[in-house]
Amino acid sequence: MSENNFFASPLENLASKFRSLPGIGKKTAYRLAFAVIDFPEQKALDFANAIIEAKKKISKCSVCGNISDSGICPVCADKKRNKKLICVVEDPRDVAAIMKISEYEGVFHVLGGLLSPLDGKTPEKLNIKSLLSRTDELLKTENPKDIEIIIATNPSVEGDATAMYLSRLIKNFGIKVTRLAYGIPVGGDLEYADEVTLERALSGRNEI
Amino acid sequence: MSENNFFASPLENLASKFRSLPGIGKKTAYRLAFAVIDFPEQKALDFANAIIEAKKKISKCSVCGNISDSGICPVCADKKRNKKLICVVEDPRDVAAIMKISEYEGVFHVLGGLLSPLDGKTPEKLNIKSLLSRTDELLKTENPKDIEIIIATNPSVEGDATAMYLSRLIKNFGIKVTRLAYGIPVGGDLEYADEVTLERALSGRNEI
Repeated sequence: MSENNFFASPLENLASKFRSLPGIGKKTAYRLAFAVIDFPEQKALDFANAIIEAKKKISKCSVCGNISDSGICPVCADKKRNKKLICVVEDPRDVAAIMKISEYEGVFHVLGGLLSPLDGKTPEKLNIKSLLSRTDELLKTENPKDIEIIIATNPSVEGDATAMYLSRLIKNFGIKVTRLAYGIPVGGDLEYADEVTLERALSGRNEI
Repeated sequence: MSENNFFASPLENLASKFRSLPGIGKKTAYRLAFAVIDFPEQKALDFANAIIEAKKKISKCSVCGNISDSGICPVCADKKRNKKLICVVEDPRDVAAIMKISEYEGVFHVLGGLLSPLDGKTPEKLNIKSLLSRTDELLKTENPKDIEIIIATNPSVEGDATAMYLSRLIKNFGIKVTRLAYGIPVGGDLEYADEVTLERALSGRNEI
């Protein structure tokens, strides 16, 4: 950002911090830095404190790997949820997306990424071990037939590979493993659907 | 942001702070908050400190209203710059844009907004008084004919009104007042230029 170094250095510094966030380019970084400077003093302090608080207080749920400010996340702590229905997702934002559908009554397991050995994302780097030990624990009290694990990774190369890897591991327990349906989105148009999506929609067709 | 309140409250709080920045919607706010949580501890602390430092140290230049971390901004403090050529701009980002053109050797005056009485932006709210006293000060030692004030407000309704208002005030001093040329941008295409731009390009035509 040095070509603009006639700006005061605290501003340059703040803009460079914004720029280190994902999806924030140079112009946006300056726009945000200027906005912070225009904040009332208290608001700027609150912003700085929110960063420190979030970093200090938020940790991973010891059960599912979702983010939490106590040992166990609110979803795992909720006694009304069905602990025998586990939805495996890539990151905590996917938890948020699925929680919006009020029909879902199960719990989650957050992998913290997808398998991608070329990028160093090997099975050991993901939150897979705890999924297996969690399933083991469940099997001590429950019948395998009553347990279902839904794999809700994205329909990408990495998401498919991760789903395949997990389903092979979990099927050994005699547990039902399912995956989200992929096909034409509601309101979508066949004419504009890409070939891969159409192929998925066709192979996943249901009797009516 | 309460519909997602199953996220831990420090995260919700941080996301709401990001959302108070201009151009940051709900999804982006969460994306940024998650990114901060993934930061190493020191990086998050540095970010928080950058906000506090920027807010504490940055003030307005007492001469031109540009942002500065000392009493006078680097542009005004530069003795090599021509103090008799003043470019009037809306905000400090415009200073940055013009500073990129190395040909410009003058100084700036930052209005801190544009005239827009309906939004409460009256002449008193802008940094206009100091422009007049600054010009007065210049006239004590300089010939009015040697001074030029370039009005570089955007070609919008508010920008035009502000330019008109300022030029009337400053012309009383017998000083030359100019405005940036507006017309077809370099690399632009006549066919796709909007009517207002074409009109400006036509009325501002030059002999060749």
